[in-house]
Amino acid sequence: MKARTKENASGLRVHTDYLEMNTRKRYEMVHITDAVERIVRASGVDDGLCFVTPMHITAAIYVNDNEEGLIEDIAEWLEKLAPAQPEYRHHQTGEDNADAHLKALLLHHETTLPVTDGRLELGRWQRIFYAEFDGQRTKRILVKVLGMSGNV
Amino acid sequence: MKARTKENASGLRVHTDYLEMNTRKRYEMVHITDAVERIVRASGVDDGLCFVTPMHITAAIYVNDNEEGLIEDIAEWLEKLAPAQPEYRHHQTGEDNADAHLKALLLHHETTLPVTDGRLELGRWQRIFYAEFDGQRTKRILVKVLGMSGNV
Amino acid sequence: MKARTKENASGLRVHTDYLEMNTRKRYEMVHITDAVERIVRASGVDDGLCFVTPMHITAAIYVNDNEEGLIEDIAEWLEKLAPAQPEYRHHQTGEDNADAHLKALLLHHETTLPVTDGRLELGRWQRIFYAEFDGQRTKRILVKVLGMSGNV
Repeated sequence: MKARTKENASGLRVHTDYLEMNTRKRYEMVHITDAVERIVRASGVDDGLCFVTPMHITAAIYVNDNEEGLIEDIAEWLEKLAPAQPEYRHHQTGEDNADAHLKALLLHHETTLPVTDGRLELGRWQRIFYAEFDGQRTKRILVKVLGMSGNV
Repeated sequence: MKARTKENASGLRVHTDYLEMNTRKRYEMVHITDAVERIVRASGVDDGLCFVTPMHITAAIYVNDNEEGLIEDIAEWLEKLAPAQPEYRHHQTGEDNADAHLKALLLHHETTLPVTDGRLELGRWQRIFYAEFDGQRTKRILVKVLGMSGNV
Repeated sequence: MKARTKENASGLRVHTDYLEMNTRKRYEMVHITDAVERIVRASGVDDGLCFVTPMHITAAIYVNDNEEGLIEDIAEWLEKLAPAQPEYRHHQTGEDNADAHLKALLLHHETTLPVTDGRLELGRWQRIFYAEFDGQRTKRILVKVLGMSGNV
């Protein structure tokens, strides 16, 4: 999957790129703001929207504080609301990761972010995280930036 | 509500269509990936975003695995986190479906999906579901596809 | 932050504006449908998407019923699933609002809405709410409307 950019004669631009993730741990929150920002700058989109989604069903994207204690609070809270346990019906298929699906649903599998003046327009403390709930293998995030080219 | 497509001279295209749902059961998860994919192909959008939302407040859209056991796990999990019970204040209005509102909030009422080369660009196991929590009557899903025409 | 509109020669239009919030209470649900609708009309976008997000990590946007009992049910439900309590790790930084982060994650920090014929295309009971979980100070909501101009 290579990055592609399309722009038509009138300045509508759609740019698609991918981030590859491979966490060391099964559960891990990975800070990806800088990686997404680089894709936004490469996109040539001046004003528009940036869409971010894992292409998997056991991972999510969320936006919140890059504070270590809070990141642990979020992980513990997700475990409380969607616990890893043997009793899920999904496990009759041989899988053992039903909790990962539920945790991903709770945080939502995609997010959209605003792009203004060629950059992500985030609030002071807003940071983008990839939330992995069944890691230790290669996964992909799709990023699509859509909007008006700076050439207009 | 009829499907409409608008395209301007330079290849920006916005296509809007609707899916009608009428579940036999009050709670039901309906697999709609194929129906959404058909709308994407009819849209003429080559590269862009596909936005999907019920026009109701007791239903949601989610993306996850089309595995029967997991679908039941999700339903049971939602019941645990947002139980049907008489004690909600909303029921003083004569309604009995407050839990349906909470379940819909938990899964989020809308989702956005990427469109690349004229098709939904989904991961291998990503499937789109309509989650009905107060069914047995006609409801509508709005689908809007926005992006660059293949004619550019 | 002032409202800005960009339109290129061919009718692609991106409009960005902001709403300022300052709730009297720490926790408060504020009905903002009319305010967002005004921005959509001012945008000059005829067909497209309206993206709404707080620029903060202790607030969310949700779409549901404008019924007082239900709004209280939602607040009580959020308190049950993401309780205010001293024991969060985040509080070792001096903060006392970890629950506000979790509540905001549960409702998701952004939403997208459809724009058709120059207006929000909402279902009969769909209303937009700003959910504040750490208020009593000035906060901002970003609204971006992107789509095809009515001039096409």
